Amino acid sequence: MDVAKMRAAVSSRQAANALRALAMDAVEAAKSGHPGMPMGMADIAEVLWLNFMKFDPAHPDWFDRDRFVLSNGHGSMLLYALLHLSGFDLPIEQLRRFRQLHSRTPGHPEYGLTPGVDTTTGPLGQGLGNAVGMALAEQLLAAEFNRPDFPLVDHWTYVFAGDGCLMEGISQEAISLAGTLRLDKLVVFYDDNGISIDGAVHNWFADDTAARFEACGWRVIRDVDGHDAEALMRAIVSARARSGKPVLVICKTVIGYGSPDKAGQASVHGAPLGSEGVARAKEALGWKHPPFMIPQEIYAHWDKREEGEELHYDWESMLYRYERAHPQLAAEFKRRIRGELPESWPQLAEQALAQRRAQTKPEATRKSSEHVLNACAPALPELFGGSADLSESNNTYWHEAPRVLPGKLAGRYLSYGVREFGMAAAMNGIAAHGGLIPYGGTFAVFSDYARNAIRMSALMRLRVIYVLSHDSIGLGEDGPTHQPVEHAASLRLIPHLQVWRPCDGVETAMAWRCALERREGPSVLMLSRQALQSCRRDAQQEADIARGGYVLSESKLPLEVVLMATGSEIAVALTAQSLLAEDGIGARVVSMPCTNRFDAQEPSWRASVLPPGLPRVAVEAAHPDFWRKYVGLEGAAVGIEDFGESAPAAQLMDYFGITAARVAEVARSRVRTGAAPSAAEPTLIVRSIN
Amino acid sequence: MDVAKMRAAVSSRQAANALRALAMDAVEAAKSGHPGMPMGMADIAEVLWLNFMKFDPAHPDWFDRDRFVLSNGHGSMLLYALLHLSGFDLPIEQLRRFRQLHSRTPGHPEYGLTPGVDTTTGPLGQGLGNAVGMALAEQLLAAEFNRPDFPLVDHWTYVFAGDGCLMEGISQEAISLAGTLRLDKLVVFYDDNGISIDGAVHNWFADDTAARFEACGWRVIRDVDGHDAEALMRAIVSARARSGKPVLVICKTVIGYGSPDKAGQASVHGAPLGSEGVARAKEALGWKHPPFMIPQEIYAHWDKREEGEELHYDWESMLYRYERAHPQLAAEFKRRIRGELPESWPQLAEQALAQRRAQTKPEATRKSSEHVLNACAPALPELFGGSADLSESNNTYWHEAPRVLPGKLAGRYLSYGVREFGMAAAMNGIAAHGGLIPYGGTFAVFSDYARNAIRMSALMRLRVIYVLSHDSIGLGEDGPTHQPVEHAASLRLIPHLQVWRPCDGVETAMAWRCALERREGPSVLMLSRQALQSCRRDAQQEADIARGGYVLSESKLPLEVVLMATGSEIAVALTAQSLLAEDGIGARVVSMPCTNRFDAQEPSWRASVLPPGLPRVAVEAAHPDFWRKYVGLEGAAVGIEDFGESAPAAQLMDYFGITAARVAEVARSRVRTGAAPSAAEPTLIVRSIN
Repeated sequence: MDVAKMRAAVSSRQAANALRALAMDAVEAAKSGHPGMPMGMADIAEVLWLNFMKFDPAHPDWFDRDRFVLSNGHGSMLLYALLHLSGFDLPIEQLRRFRQLHSRTPGHPEYGLTPGVDTTTGPLGQGLGNAVGMALAEQLLAAEFNRPDFPLVDHWTYVFAGDGCLMEGISQEAISLAGTLRLDKLVVFYDDNGISIDGAVHNWFADDTAARFEACGWRVIRDVDGHDAEALMRAIVSARARSGKPVLVICKTVIGYGSPDKAGQASVHGAPLGSEGVARAKEALGWKHPPFMIPQEIYAHWDKREEGEELHYDWESMLYRYERAHPQLAAEFKRRIRGELPESWPQLAEQALAQRRAQTKPEATRKSSEHVLNACAPALPELFGGSADLSESNNTYWHEAPRVLPGKLAGRYLSYGVREFGMAAAMNGIAAHGGLIPYGGTFAVFSDYARNAIRMSALMRLRVIYVLSHDSIGLGEDGPTHQPVEHAASLRLIPHLQVWRPCDGVETAMAWRCALERREGPSVLMLSRQALQSCRRDAQQEADIARGGYVLSESKLPLEVVLMATGSEIAVALTAQSLLAEDGIGARVVSMPCTNRFDAQEPSWRASVLPPGLPRVAVEAAHPDFWRKYVGLEGAAVGIEDFGESAPAAQLMDYFGITAARVAEVARSRVRTGAAPSAAEPTLIVRSIN
Repeated sequence: MDVAKMRAAVSSRQAANALRALAMDAVEAAKSGHPGMPMGMADIAEVLWLNFMKFDPAHPDWFDRDRFVLSNGHGSMLLYALLHLSGFDLPIEQLRRFRQLHSRTPGHPEYGLTPGVDTTTGPLGQGLGNAVGMALAEQLLAAEFNRPDFPLVDHWTYVFAGDGCLMEGISQEAISLAGTLRLDKLVVFYDDNGISIDGAVHNWFADDTAARFEACGWRVIRDVDGHDAEALMRAIVSARARSGKPVLVICKTVIGYGSPDKAGQASVHGAPLGSEGVARAKEALGWKHPPFMIPQEIYAHWDKREEGEELHYDWESMLYRYERAHPQLAAEFKRRIRGELPESWPQLAEQALAQRRAQTKPEATRKSSEHVLNACAPALPELFGGSADLSESNNTYWHEAPRVLPGKLAGRYLSYGVREFGMAAAMNGIAAHGGLIPYGGTFAVFSDYARNAIRMSALMRLRVIYVLSHDSIGLGEDGPTHQPVEHAASLRLIPHLQVWRPCDGVETAMAWRCALERREGPSVLMLSRQALQSCRRDAQQEADIARGGYVLSESKLPLEVVLMATGSEIAVALTAQSLLAEDGIGARVVSMPCTNRFDAQEPSWRASVLPPGLPRVAVEAAHPDFWRKYVGLEGAAVGIEDFGESAPAAQLMDYFGITAARVAEVARSRVRTGAAPSAAEPTLIVRSIN
């Protein structure tokens, strides 16, 4: 805490008003945006950023910086103003281009786009979940790498959150998990302004928030005047006194603080004040400068470059000494923060693959996945596993993985509890933090609960791995509430997400390999509950798994039809191939474990797998519409268009017609109508064949 | 409370053991299922069902029955045993067929399948949300229809919930909403057994649950021995003393109670005990009867048919007198519980349509939707609206709709707060309760948060209407976190869900009409933020909107290509049609506001809209893969395969190529390569044309 700064020529209020002015100006220029939150939280931001936050504006990715999460991401202009004023590479021209195409100041903060933005926010509540992951990652890495006199990993995670964040259910998952784990370097500032878009919140949000957080193991600092810099200073000093609990600071604020017309009202939340409204607010705030003009003394007050450089330099010096004292650990630490896999990785991956290749008995791919983890995880210390309960069912726990437990914030595996969304958001935070690669499991159908966080993994291009077992009606008796039908297809539609549905142990090992090696985004592994036959492949075929689609079994007869399948339906396709061969029809079986990767292959290669002019029949125990993109109108997609049923798995496959006989029958009909698509008798919208 | 029954020859424990025995036997026969919860909650169930619950086994749909929600739905055998023993039409043969194909005893309870099952559960936490909707519906209808001496609507909602339910974030949304509204005829029994699948929960769930619920406005009855019938009696009597708050009864239970080997352990949660384990448990419980055999005295103890018939008869008698005293109200009440729209509905719908037809200025479909609501809602008292905040943005609030407020449980519109999932689950409860048709709004991208509840609406075939505004990148500056890309396609994949994306006011009015008239399942209305041109149609075209796809604009030239679009892209397609006409190319524009309905039309009609043999080009500002099912491999789908950007909407449409010029160019290329699909030069996997 730098008391001198508090007493400097520029008052905290004036410094905060610079944030307010920039927020108003930018929203005004964009003719859209959210001025209310930045004006309401400006004083809190000023005190936190100038007196407590550790960062180096010239190196926004400095690993030991404090993390800052704007969970109420619509207040993005607050963050952009903070970054601009404190010296990050975000010039005033960028603020003038707020919400314009390809500016670095989009409507909501975006990770990877704007220097200093630690996570993408906007979808409410998820920032809290991200922050839990960040605070956990900090503790895990501190336990792993810190040594006496070398607090290499030692930073805080700060969160701004609004009423909306706290109403969202994910907030409960996040705070309950943080409280249970006793994450005590996590501080949340609650913007308690009593307003959401629909108006005064008491009519739909009457929680005693302090009591709720205390019930979940948090320490709560109540009734802080969010516009009183000294009160805020005291609160933050208190918050940083570690107590074994995460801390909530409840800041009483006025939304749109400074606007004589609209302060305290919902109307200031998400619309420009208008030029006259801005003028009146600036007058009320005593702000006399033209739009986007910040006086030099205020820039000087805000400038954190020198201080940040010093902090960063001290840390680099420590790292330098650490390298001398603990050379191996230092090398490992640097590898980890670069996000590179260990040198031994290729051998490790090959070993896992070889083990699965040698295993020829039927095996559920969830079990194959467990074997891969057992083979790789011990030598892959960055891999951080977990599951939203169900770890025995989705086989995400690897042999003797050290468990993270309340107050024991070290280890390799976390039972996240029955909290799919919270787990996914925490994994996004862990991945964004760096140093760890998180994977987490649940049943595929419950990916619905986490769906927007999976989307956020993809939007942020984070290396997060979702292990989704029980991937079809093949799970059997649990019935339609638990049986995915539309999930494979709908996950494949999320941009930048790679969805794997491997057919055996070797494909599962390759899926893990690709997911781990992929630095540009998240992956989903959809795994079977039931045992699947292993397939024979040569070395080239095995390598081609990574292309996402390849010829698994070539026809011995002249090729007349292509059968395509994934996962458990590969066995169906292979049997259908045999049935067709008995009729003298040559069929090839193409395995498509990851359509997203297949689509990214060069056209010539795709054409070699799916030769133009041949009819195609896809089979997947899932919604068939997806497969039209490969089979066209002339081909056929055998699938399921309705919800599942509760019954033993084999019966269900028969009942829903996911059988070799039906695939063969459909393929025969396609061969008979002529291999080449014909305009004479096109099938208009053939979906699954009844 | 019938104390005499308490003292009958059969003890509560023996009666509860019948539940345990049936659960064990059925799980054993099925070789799968969850014995732990039924054995743990059997005593609670026995006391509640035999002493407090109001129902008539012969008429499971009796409107004024108490509602029972098994939120921890994996304990389905508890419910089936309760229904069987108390006299519902669920014979022992059905229990023997637990988890078998087409039995009425599926793995998780299914609404509409098993008499006496009030809602489908299994996906954890949602039952709590359903129950909040049911308890709210009860209060709303009581306020509307009850008159002095005529408590026509007067029932309770009881919930069984486990640790998993309370860890799920949706539980917080549900309890916070219930507490805020002061729903005081809602009683939740928390199965506090300290176990989830991963083991003892304290390592991942350390909440002080009592304090958490109290913080959210609940009354909590603590530390009830869940195996002590007298303690449970006292607790339930206390719970039913209305206090202006919902009630949580925390029951300390032992999972798998009665099993000497496995009681209190995670291993009893979700796997059969094995024949020896069952034998040991039965011996420990003093249960000496063969599998599925219930002694007559225990059947007699459980039989609620006579008592239920009496209760039901008394109520029917009251309804009879009510009809005399309040004939109009009674007629309305009976209509409402039948779920029929009012006689005036066709005129009302036509009036709403006529208003939109007369409106020729550009109008956002979210605004059109508001106009439709204003036209219809006042005369459609069953329509119960709401929004997860954002009501000003998604235009779900209709003019002067009376608002439901805390303690004022009457009205037509509810601000659900920022709780999409909780809102959707509550709407499922409202619809399952009957008497009301719920609709609720949010932004389309946040349908992700509610996704599994939308799926549950569809699985339960409930008349729930989702109003999802801000339906594409056309929302503009809020950027990729708020811009749906994959949502239209992925919602269309959910079985039994009808997804509308209307292009103007008339289509919006027709979408509302179809959604309201549809009794077999839920509907989604995806609405634009931006203003859209209204289209001209003749009467037949207008009627054909209900078919989900129709020729909106026929070519004046010989037809060479079909352009397909939805929503805001209809204008793009119409302009492209003009551009093509300038080149002498005849194009038809097909509007496809609801592909799900289009797919259900007879083939001849579909062929009349999409003539075989003509190339097709689809345009939608969304993921293009979906459209392959209509355009095939030879046609083209113009869409967006990446996340959006933050910028003004018009710029975004240009940037992403959702333009008439591009559609026309693509269509020209398809016409040039020949109208009839050809094997010579097929386009392998053409997606959006770059």
